[in-house]
Amino acid sequence: MDEIITLDYGSGGKKTSRLIERTILPALDNPALRELSDGAIVPGGEQLVFSTDSFVVSPLFFPGGDIGKLSVCGTVNDIAVCGAKPLYLSCALILEEGFPLSDLERILASMRDAAAAAGVQVVTGDTKVVERGRGDGVYINTAGIGVLRWSGLSPRAMRGGDAVIVSGAVGDHGTAVMLSRSGMAQGDIRSDCAALNGLTEAILRLDAGVRVLRDPTRGGVATTLNEFVEGGPLGIELDAGAIPVHGAVRSACELLGLDPLYCANEGKLLAVEPEESVQPVLDAMHARPEGAEAAVIGRVTDRYPGKVVAQTALGGKRILQKLTGAQLPRIC
Amino acid sequence: MDEIITLDYGSGGKKTSRLIERTILPALDNPALRELSDGAIVPGGEQLVFSTDSFVVSPLFFPGGDIGKLSVCGTVNDIAVCGAKPLYLSCALILEEGFPLSDLERILASMRDAAAAAGVQVVTGDTKVVERGRGDGVYINTAGIGVLRWSGLSPRAMRGGDAVIVSGAVGDHGTAVMLSRSGMAQGDIRSDCAALNGLTEAILRLDAGVRVLRDPTRGGVATTLNEFVEGGPLGIELDAGAIPVHGAVRSACELLGLDPLYCANEGKLLAVEPEESVQPVLDAMHARPEGAEAAVIGRVTDRYPGKVVAQTALGGKRILQKLTGAQLPRIC
Repeated sequence: MDEIITLDYGSGGKKTSRLIERTILPALDNPALRELSDGAIVPGGEQLVFSTDSFVVSPLFFPGGDIGKLSVCGTVNDIAVCGAKPLYLSCALILEEGFPLSDLERILASMRDAAAAAGVQVVTGDTKVVERGRGDGVYINTAGIGVLRWSGLSPRAMRGGDAVIVSGAVGDHGTAVMLSRSGMAQGDIRSDCAALNGLTEAILRLDAGVRVLRDPTRGGVATTLNEFVEGGPLGIELDAGAIPVHGAVRSACELLGLDPLYCANEGKLLAVEPEESVQPVLDAMHARPEGAEAAVIGRVTDRYPGKVVAQTALGGKRILQKLTGAQLPRIC
Repeated sequence: MDEIITLDYGSGGKKTSRLIERTILPALDNPALRELSDGAIVPGGEQLVFSTDSFVVSPLFFPGGDIGKLSVCGTVNDIAVCGAKPLYLSCALILEEGFPLSDLERILASMRDAAAAAGVQVVTGDTKVVERGRGDGVYINTAGIGVLRWSGLSPRAMRGGDAVIVSGAVGDHGTAVMLSRSGMAQGDIRSDCAALNGLTEAILRLDAGVRVLRDPTRGGVATTLNEFVEGGPLGIELDAGAIPVHGAVRSACELLGLDPLYCANEGKLLAVEPEESVQPVLDAMHARPEGAEAAVIGRVTDRYPGKVVAQTALGGKRILQKLTGAQLPRIC
């Protein structure tokens, strides 16, 4: 392992996993943390889900959202995919000296709107200021609490033959931010940044035996699906042609040398379902705007244990590994 | 109000208050946030206390502690002073590219030890990396959840004649960090960084009618006492000579041009109590190492509504305002 932190350690891919597994978990070990889900389920009168994310996205404002909206939706989504109803958020700001107050106001207004849309309240917070050149405008941490409504969601619940569904087109957020960062922002590529708790609740209410839900953020769909299967007896076979990708995103990815399957999403859901639930779940997704483009994109299989394999249009197969390196630093 | 963020906005004093009141609260308004306590009490099966702090202390390591220990104790204390038993923490790291992994390991070990000492578990986390020059080694956010055990603690519960108690000598943390930053660290001045939940529980178990508890961190004792009385009908009269300050800290403060009453503490408790509870509360404090130097330092009075007034050894009086300006930037 390297002796200093490099940007790859923040990629959400292999190096991030290694840092967490070799350095962070051994230091802070306990059963709830070991679960390595997006949130921790902690005992209480009711079972609670507790999650946190720091947001360091650059630029702060991008088509389809900003760091404020992202910081609310990101934590809401981490709680929602655990099967919980998100209720309360914290908001901790690390401001850089010289940051325009008008930008802060705009960001806070986005947080307010996003919290209202998701039905959560920001109930506590903190504000720190660092000197010029020790930050980058503003970094936002949100932590959140939700009440567990549907327990047992886990990659370990997956079975061979299960369907893998994505709630819409992939790669919008990562591409929008990268284009925006390079000054090439174009109107038809917008971040998908959105709260998913309405969608997860609509699906889970069906009692359709959902195995696992996850929002494929840093590292994209390919990395999240790898997390589902790594070290286990099952694999996932993707039908590359079935994965929805907006045309403009596909073109931009070609231009930027990115793969949409590794681009961050901030308003998409991956759901693994038993075959018999596919239609009701797809119907529930299609009934909502954020799920209008939902599609079955693959199957769980015992043929490729621990691997995610994509079947290409030409009939070939390629193994999709976890993201390596820092393809998209500071994407969220 | 200024149009850009200056370091004062992170001081924990007047400018921080103004930023919170004029910019942050109006944007994110709700009743729990309005309480402006160190944590939010949120409804649930049991009542929960939820709190967050980001830590940006510089240097990362200082006599008596480091950013890891601080990040655990700080959030534990914010929850404890609300009358709750802290249970779970999150840990979100913003690492700067190039940060030595060995330093991270040392910091995480401190977090582990501090969490064990306080009886809390770190159950969820996040890791981001920013480019060189966009951070300062590591910033840590912790959020925490506790179960409310003693409700009703509030500055609004104070009555004229109540005693103001501090659990020990003031100014250790701020002075230790400032000396360490300026390369003048000396062995006899150490941060008081410690978890206070054992102490708060020992006091609250007495059922002694405690009015309010608070840990005087950024802005020091003077700023926290101002927060107790501002805008209300009561004031606080301090006996300046009764406030415990270690000799070395007093000398260092003179050297650095600091006032110990405005220096951050990270392991001290302010308690306001009815007169008849003073002795049992002092006894409970003195029975524990972290409360061994506890002393009554003043009284609540209706003579100076909204003000904190210090009676000096020479019989004079001075009004102690909230901290203005950034006396001690990045102290926690």
